[in-house]
Amino acid sequence: MKFHVSVFVGVVHFLSLTSGKAVYGNGISQRTFQEIKEEIACYGDVAKAIINLAVYGKAQNRSYERLALLVDTVGPRLSGSKSLEKAIQIMHQNLQEDGLENVHLEPVKIPHWERGEESAVMLEPRIHKMAVLGLGSSIGTPPEGVTAEVLVVTSFDELQRRAPEARGKIVVYNQPYTNYSRAVQYRVQGAVEAAKVGALASLIRSVASFSIYSPHTGIQEYQDGVPKIPTACITVEDAEMMSRMASRGSRIVIQLKMGAKNYPDADSFNTVAEIVGSKYPEQVVLVSGHLDSWDVGQGAMDDGGGAFISWEALSLIKDLGLRPKRTLRLVLWTAEEQGGIGALQYYQLHKANISNYSLVMESDLGTFLPSGLQFTGSDKARAIVEEVMCLLEPINVTQVFRAGEGTDINFWIQAGVPGASLLDDLYKYFSFHHSHGDTMTVMDPKQMNVAAAVWAVVSFVIADMEEMLPRS
Amino acid sequence: MKFHVSVFVGVVHFLSLTSGKAVYGNGISQRTFQEIKEEIACYGDVAKAIINLAVYGKAQNRSYERLALLVDTVGPRLSGSKSLEKAIQIMHQNLQEDGLENVHLEPVKIPHWERGEESAVMLEPRIHKMAVLGLGSSIGTPPEGVTAEVLVVTSFDELQRRAPEARGKIVVYNQPYTNYSRAVQYRVQGAVEAAKVGALASLIRSVASFSIYSPHTGIQEYQDGVPKIPTACITVEDAEMMSRMASRGSRIVIQLKMGAKNYPDADSFNTVAEIVGSKYPEQVVLVSGHLDSWDVGQGAMDDGGGAFISWEALSLIKDLGLRPKRTLRLVLWTAEEQGGIGALQYYQLHKANISNYSLVMESDLGTFLPSGLQFTGSDKARAIVEEVMCLLEPINVTQVFRAGEGTDINFWIQAGVPGASLLDDLYKYFSFHHSHGDTMTVMDPKQMNVAAAVWAVVSFVIADMEEMLPRS
Repeated sequence: MKFHVSVFVGVVHFLSLTSGKAVYGNGISQRTFQEIKEEIACYGDVAKAIINLAVYGKAQNRSYERLALLVDTVGPRLSGSKSLEKAIQIMHQNLQEDGLENVHLEPVKIPHWERGEESAVMLEPRIHKMAVLGLGSSIGTPPEGVTAEVLVVTSFDELQRRAPEARGKIVVYNQPYTNYSRAVQYRVQGAVEAAKVGALASLIRSVASFSIYSPHTGIQEYQDGVPKIPTACITVEDAEMMSRMASRGSRIVIQLKMGAKNYPDADSFNTVAEIVGSKYPEQVVLVSGHLDSWDVGQGAMDDGGGAFISWEALSLIKDLGLRPKRTLRLVLWTAEEQGGIGALQYYQLHKANISNYSLVMESDLGTFLPSGLQFTGSDKARAIVEEVMCLLEPINVTQVFRAGEGTDINFWIQAGVPGASLLDDLYKYFSFHHSHGDTMTVMDPKQMNVAAAVWAVVSFVIADMEEMLPRS
Repeated sequence: MKFHVSVFVGVVHFLSLTSGKAVYGNGISQRTFQEIKEEIACYGDVAKAIINLAVYGKAQNRSYERLALLVDTVGPRLSGSKSLEKAIQIMHQNLQEDGLENVHLEPVKIPHWERGEESAVMLEPRIHKMAVLGLGSSIGTPPEGVTAEVLVVTSFDELQRRAPEARGKIVVYNQPYTNYSRAVQYRVQGAVEAAKVGALASLIRSVASFSIYSPHTGIQEYQDGVPKIPTACITVEDAEMMSRMASRGSRIVIQLKMGAKNYPDADSFNTVAEIVGSKYPEQVVLVSGHLDSWDVGQGAMDDGGGAFISWEALSLIKDLGLRPKRTLRLVLWTAEEQGGIGALQYYQLHKANISNYSLVMESDLGTFLPSGLQFTGSDKARAIVEEVMCLLEPINVTQVFRAGEGTDINFWIQAGVPGASLLDDLYKYFSFHHSHGDTMTVMDPKQMNVAAAVWAVVSFVIADMEEMLPRS
């Protein structure tokens, strides 16, 4: 997950639209909501069959085992790396061998950045070798590094107030972690804001809900007209320590060395597979996760889990001999972490068919025990999705929250297509996010079974209902 | 904390010893338990005064602030290092400046081991640079490292069964974490057991309740007559990954390089300060924590917290103008992590006075919100300690558990002296224990306030009661 997350914590209650004819589907529907409810209720047996297969049956633990094999084999999968391209080739073959339809690769040019060797050593007030991870797209330092005094701030406001002190220094951001959306601004814009006031480099406190001295990397963005300075993340622990040292009046000096380099764009692919619709093959329900990751850990959680429950959704439906009326399309995005590069390419290639997209789904917030579904769409579409989620009562995952957006599906949602994301324990997610700790150890096969069941039931039922989800 | 921990989870209920004359104190007590209860109840106001000062008053957050200043200034404090000796000198001065009595240093010869540069790289089935920390007292590898195939086992039993496969290999232990006491055997004896079956080196899964790809170091022990092989810890994540790889039949090859060296013993000190008893100055209640740590993180939790709430206990009592009948003696141990070296020296120096030790206390399991007190001693002593703990009802820390042992007080407990340890959240403790994550970020000033209040009330009341705690 790159940097979008917006969680509406309240539960949106079922809308009582039980009388009168209402507009559902792309055109004018003549059906009452009661009729739609009855249609959805008919999927009870299908939902139970999917749940039984995924959670208790032959398919249990399959998505976990498949994921473990991939990420143990190729490791992390940074945009532009050979391991990402190896993973894409393996997945292309996996999807073909799984018997899915229209398995193919759609070419994308993606960023190619490498961190190289890097180090950050505190020289004053005492020698201390710090854990550090350069931020994606950052330039490197000269070979001898940048050695400078530190200015510690806790916010952009404080940086503005103390702007005269920043010139020639390394700015250290010790921003609090209130939530991801707020804190991540320091990772994304920290270098630009520091450069504007004359800093030589910037170090940000890792954006993480929990730390065992773990740096958490991620993308950062330069701005035209602002000098590019090297930027990296440090641990919560070191940011807090420097904040204490500074508050005692200690002079802090750091030597930062980064071998980071940006290379010309590399060739990559979105990986696509389908179960072609029986009645409206041109209409689409899209399920997705991204295959790329950061270059640390195994990219098992972000977003191996999302990619593999998306694949699992199609596998489960195929294994049960089901074929929905609409096409179920699996997309494994490339270069999400660099800003949804694969997703933008896909949107541009396919947007002419936008009127035929019923629902776009992305799982990129973990595949732990799901809390429910985040959904963005019209009230009428939401009411339908809430009914569909009732089918998941046997595994107690029925809640529908706001904010279905995700980096890879936002283009569609902004253009009016309903969108959904899987929601689970975000405190856990942001404990491991973009760190060396994003490995299979975080993943739980039983939780992935449940997540896959949710994903399969929602995508199948929406793809099979008589009408597309209504838009605003 | 080195490697002893034994937690009895049940609460020992109050013993009803309310009638008849019973033996309390060193000699024959003529007092009924009811009389002792009444004596303890009289400390209600003193306990409240201590709690008010520590938790709500002027002294709140003092132990946290003092600790932060020390560990930010000197960093971690490995046995034999200059930073440990610097910390001892600073503490000697701190205790004098605090106005404590008989502040002095007692010389101890301590082990001097340094890890040097170290690395572990998986060469097959894929290149993967692993986080690694050599174990204390381990020898190093030749400069070119040890490069060998891996044998992964989950237990010593499995190692025995597969002994013929181990020769010439690197043994990787992926032992489960059921509890610390069990799992730590693999850290302490893993190298010896691997060497017995011809292994070239051993890597153990870090002994930790939680991991974000964090290696957790600690002491290991060679055995006479068994070849010494290099040994280090790796992360839970890498141990699990190699276990999965091995179960798929993959050949795993690792190159391990360790620059570890054992040097001649170094000069160090136990740091001692007192509040001298007003009536029985030769009698002692000992409160303690250890000042040394591993060479990672800041040693803030293990055992900066324990050392600093022990200091704080004396400070609080002094600040309130209290002077117990017996001497309250603070000892800040050196080289606990190397096997209680400072504590052994202290015991040998002071054991002639053992009949005058009423209670030995050590805090070395964290200074988070206390669950209660672990206690080892006679049933009669336990009944008294339970009464004393009732004085802590205002802060809701009244429970008395079994197993008061701790590395630095065990010599005394084994010789019959009652002993007590502070107990808190061990899951949290073993998440950070002996890792880079043992920093001030783990510590909470408010929790330290409560821990210090418990420590001060127990030590003061036991030191001030008319009679010593009865032994078996």
